[in-house]
Amino acid sequence: MNTETYMIELGQQARRAANTMARAETGQKNRALLAMAAALDAARPQLQQANAADLQAGREKGLDAAMLDRLELTPARIDSMIEGLLQVAALPDPVGGINAMNYRPSGIQVGKMRVPLGVVGIIYESRPNVTVEAASLCLKSGNATILRGGSEALQSNQAIAACIAAGLREAGLPEQVVQVVNTTDRDAVGQLITMPEYVDVIVPRGGKGLIERIAKDARVPVIKHLDGVCHVYIDQAADKVKAINIALNAKTHRYGTCNTMETLLVHQSMAAEVLPDLAERYQASGVELRGCALTRQYLPYIREADEQDWFAEYLAPVLAIKVVENLDEAIRHINHYGSHHTDAIVTENYTDARIFLRAVDSSSVMVNASTRFADGFEYGLGAEIGISTDKIHARGPVGLEGLTSEKYVVFGDGHVRQ
Amino acid sequence: MNTETYMIELGQQARRAANTMARAETGQKNRALLAMAAALDAARPQLQQANAADLQAGREKGLDAAMLDRLELTPARIDSMIEGLLQVAALPDPVGGINAMNYRPSGIQVGKMRVPLGVVGIIYESRPNVTVEAASLCLKSGNATILRGGSEALQSNQAIAACIAAGLREAGLPEQVVQVVNTTDRDAVGQLITMPEYVDVIVPRGGKGLIERIAKDARVPVIKHLDGVCHVYIDQAADKVKAINIALNAKTHRYGTCNTMETLLVHQSMAAEVLPDLAERYQASGVELRGCALTRQYLPYIREADEQDWFAEYLAPVLAIKVVENLDEAIRHINHYGSHHTDAIVTENYTDARIFLRAVDSSSVMVNASTRFADGFEYGLGAEIGISTDKIHARGPVGLEGLTSEKYVVFGDGHVRQ
Repeated sequence: MNTETYMIELGQQARRAANTMARAETGQKNRALLAMAAALDAARPQLQQANAADLQAGREKGLDAAMLDRLELTPARIDSMIEGLLQVAALPDPVGGINAMNYRPSGIQVGKMRVPLGVVGIIYESRPNVTVEAASLCLKSGNATILRGGSEALQSNQAIAACIAAGLREAGLPEQVVQVVNTTDRDAVGQLITMPEYVDVIVPRGGKGLIERIAKDARVPVIKHLDGVCHVYIDQAADKVKAINIALNAKTHRYGTCNTMETLLVHQSMAAEVLPDLAERYQASGVELRGCALTRQYLPYIREADEQDWFAEYLAPVLAIKVVENLDEAIRHINHYGSHHTDAIVTENYTDARIFLRAVDSSSVMVNASTRFADGFEYGLGAEIGISTDKIHARGPVGLEGLTSEKYVVFGDGHVRQ
Repeated sequence: MNTETYMIELGQQARRAANTMARAETGQKNRALLAMAAALDAARPQLQQANAADLQAGREKGLDAAMLDRLELTPARIDSMIEGLLQVAALPDPVGGINAMNYRPSGIQVGKMRVPLGVVGIIYESRPNVTVEAASLCLKSGNATILRGGSEALQSNQAIAACIAAGLREAGLPEQVVQVVNTTDRDAVGQLITMPEYVDVIVPRGGKGLIERIAKDARVPVIKHLDGVCHVYIDQAADKVKAINIALNAKTHRYGTCNTMETLLVHQSMAAEVLPDLAERYQASGVELRGCALTRQYLPYIREADEQDWFAEYLAPVLAIKVVENLDEAIRHINHYGSHHTDAIVTENYTDARIFLRAVDSSSVMVNASTRFADGFEYGLGAEIGISTDKIHARGPVGLEGLTSEKYVVFGDGHVRQ
């Protein structure tokens, strides 16, 4: 069977499975999640054997150490896959809830019911634990899923898929609710993202390059997670201690995450007070600083930042710093150079906080908190399938609700339109 | 200036205007809407002069009578544009509202703020009143808009645009908040739908062909309104009077609308009771009937329906009728042949109603009400920009809320991530 035919078959099976899932009860979905957890626990030897084969092949192909690390299924990582399934089982089921049924002048009663999207296609790279995370969130939100992992993790993903299938069977759900693509042919992705009749939405998880390619070629809506060029703005009315703590945490808590600050903006009247202290502490953490001309009046020893620095997502111990004239300049800078991901103001001023919240066009806007909080767990979603940098459907961390939509429900007693 | 450069310029201006709009107050937006209404009222002679030129050119080009009718700006249609502006001004402003601010274990407080999408591109066909409708809904929801009307309505749309600009000026808002494309070059559409840096979402209004073309070529999310293949299912437990009233209203109230029933499904145990009566009344209204083999046992004189009839959106006095074995067959038929727009069950049975509501995958699902109610005004949205047949973002009638999104808002007191 060629790849196109194979993918169409997966699509047709997923569509049928989605119709079953639309009516699946919460208890049945939870039983499947718990049975998957038990199956993973029982299959530890098989999982590690399959993973060892992937690791061996990866070493032979010359994958770098970071990639091999992401690929590895350690006992601790299997534990955390199992723990994740238990957590998703414990989350409230968003599906089927009806909101705000109101009577209209015509006599009909109108409200909205939360429903699954249908079939979700997930495309991701080397980490095999994503297979379990994505499958569990899609299952709990009542969707069927087609999962396309990285070719380097094929054996591991198939071993995980067997455990997922066992869990579905045990709960009396069709195995086609979660299908893991069993080919490394790249055409599989091209086919998956161009069959709107079988796939309702695509969630790519991976580098910016992968996501941009998929968004460009897709004929299906894509929930994108592009880059995170996040800012902290230290306002004229900032508390110095909060400013320093937040600016340090937002940069140095972790360097490689999308909610890490990449550019620090400082009001001119605060520059002398915070920049020297901050610079000392950044340099103690090994963070390279790059600054505008004004910044370098306070920190003459740092490198000058150029236009590209303001756009940069370093994902590394590097920070660009700009001194701004006022709040408006900070907002203009963020909306122009930022990626509309997460931006924070540090201020004690009520009006400045209100203006910043309203005018900054980002998926998360914060007052006196570190950008590192932009995360599904921290926001109370329980788990997240990604952080959307799109404006339509879902913005910011996407949990179970982001994998659903709402349909209108109308109750009448024989009402007709006049 | 060539069309590409012109459209990019409109896009850049719209993006800047969107930043202003994000902070515009409700009162200012309402003043603009009321000033537009006054400007339209004062410009009646100019509107009718411009429209006469379009009508004359249309007659010379040989446009058909239906198209010329849609193009005409009668005094009554100008009245209703003015009335529409007053209604949108009276609607509550969704922008800036903050929902469900909750404290998290970390101490931060997290909620969501409703925000404009940014720049909305609208592509539509001959009716010039859409210019006012679309502009007013986008303005009230805090978006900047680029409007691309039909070439046959260019003069009328420019005359309306002058009134919109006057209203914006009077309220102190930039004229670039609403821009009406001033060229008939078809490349303008191609450019508008492929500049994600300046346009956040496209709403096409027109025939299925136009919308499919746009969805296929767009590099920007599209809120689509495709076809309405709507069903009424008369259940085993239907009340006969309600069934007949609803089935008649859903078909004959208006033939050309997307929420008109195109296929009637009847439980086998109800066929003898309702079909002869219904058929007589449909035929009295001039509705042509086409039926499955079982239907023709009751109505032997009607034409046999073929596979294409089950997929058909007639938009005409034609109705396909199928007798089904049970509720499950009805649901399978609707989900397979329907367009996921609006479907209704007529039943007195609690369980059948619940199953139908949950399992039918349509943007509106109704119990004992006519499909004709699927409409933004009837649902209480105040007005609608269209009816979405998409599953993500907005499903069903799209009002002001569908032209907005939600961003996360986080309040802290110097909180950092541990």
